[in-house]
Amino acid sequence: MRIAELSARTGVAIPTIKYYLREGLLEPGVARAANQADYSEHHVQRLRLVRALVDVGGVPIAAAREVVAALGRTDLPPHDLLGVAHEAVAPARHPDRSSADWQRARSAVDDLADRRGWRVNPDSHGMNMLADVLMALSTLEVPEVLADLDVYADTAQRLATIEVDHVIARGDPTRMLELVVLGTVLGESLFAALRLLAHEHASADRLAPETRPQPAAEQPRISRGPATS
Amino acid sequence: MRIAELSARTGVAIPTIKYYLREGLLEPGVARAANQADYSEHHVQRLRLVRALVDVGGVPIAAAREVVAALGRTDLPPHDLLGVAHEAVAPARHPDRSSADWQRARSAVDDLADRRGWRVNPDSHGMNMLADVLMALSTLEVPEVLADLDVYADTAQRLATIEVDHVIARGDPTRMLELVVLGTVLGESLFAALRLLAHEHASADRLAPETRPQPAAEQPRISRGPATS
Repeated sequence: MRIAELSARTGVAIPTIKYYLREGLLEPGVARAANQADYSEHHVQRLRLVRALVDVGGVPIAAAREVVAALGRTDLPPHDLLGVAHEAVAPARHPDRSSADWQRARSAVDDLADRRGWRVNPDSHGMNMLADVLMALSTLEVPEVLADLDVYADTAQRLATIEVDHVIARGDPTRMLELVVLGTVLGESLFAALRLLAHEHASADRLAPETRPQPAAEQPRISRGPATS
Repeated sequence: MRIAELSARTGVAIPTIKYYLREGLLEPGVARAANQADYSEHHVQRLRLVRALVDVGGVPIAAAREVVAALGRTDLPPHDLLGVAHEAVAPARHPDRSSADWQRARSAVDDLADRRGWRVNPDSHGMNMLADVLMALSTLEVPEVLADLDVYADTAQRLATIEVDHVIARGDPTRMLELVVLGTVLGESLFAALRLLAHEHASADRLAPETRPQPAAEQPRISRGPATS
């Protein structure tokens, strides 16, 4: 197909497609005539992937290029590819990590990982990112969230285990890699969106019960205990 | 205290403090002499809050200003303030929402909210953000994540309920508002960091069991059932 059809099929404007081609996010089409190239279903699929990463996952262009390049590397074990996906979603922002407060928070993270028997690289993005959040929570005096740290960790662990098992169930290495990347990037956006809605509902339910009375039959059954049984 | 001490106490550089003052993220200090102002503990706390929002939560400066302004408004009910916090964390990126694919995804979101009896505004950021993700997941053929939508929703709902109850337990309206905002922004970063680590652990556990054998005594007990009991 011509670039106009590729654009119509994916809803991505032609100048944007040309930008992705220049940036190496999309492989060139097969040259057909001067200034004309032929694109395939592969391009449609890849373009959808790039849009999902950039528009939905909020992944910067440079990181999206890394992800796309990693997807082509069937030699990379899925566990290593996870690192690439994590780099893509981990925020580029870096709070000051030299303070004594931060070091204390980082020790708490190491303790948490030890306590849970987590096999994680001490240099993982997640370790420092978690220390950033713990430091902020402790200097801002938000003890409630810190007290629930293990509830959050249990929850994260349950979701991650389900997700990794889905990856393994795919069998075919190329399709496994794809799910690792998409699951990491889009799974985070998915959960963030659900969290916003769940917060809004819980807030309406507890703090503004008078605004719209809810019929008893529609009451959601919320399990309120800690995440592990 | 002088600006130099405020900087030393918070680890925020003086030019950055001046920038926050100009941008209205920090109230001016009390003028003491020409070119000198006096800052208080209130400024220390506010500066920590701004840093947490911007550096840890990844909130843009303009959105952080909205959050800070909302924190001062004790007239705003906590449920409305939640909207301000959500605006701050909701990503500014907007995929194309005119396509038939997107409309289908949005219908699925409306169905989910109905099915769960969620009291949410149809125009909430979360609704459209969730449709963005569902559309991406369906065009990219990631049926595994879609199949688990209710597991994710259950999980989000359980965490949100715990969090909202913490807010209510604070009693004092000003402190409630603070937790709504901080909980929304920092809670998201916290869970994202834990997810990265849990993924890494689950991946190591399932896909690379030979790299570092784990002593049996340290095996984490993972509850693998669906999130609700």
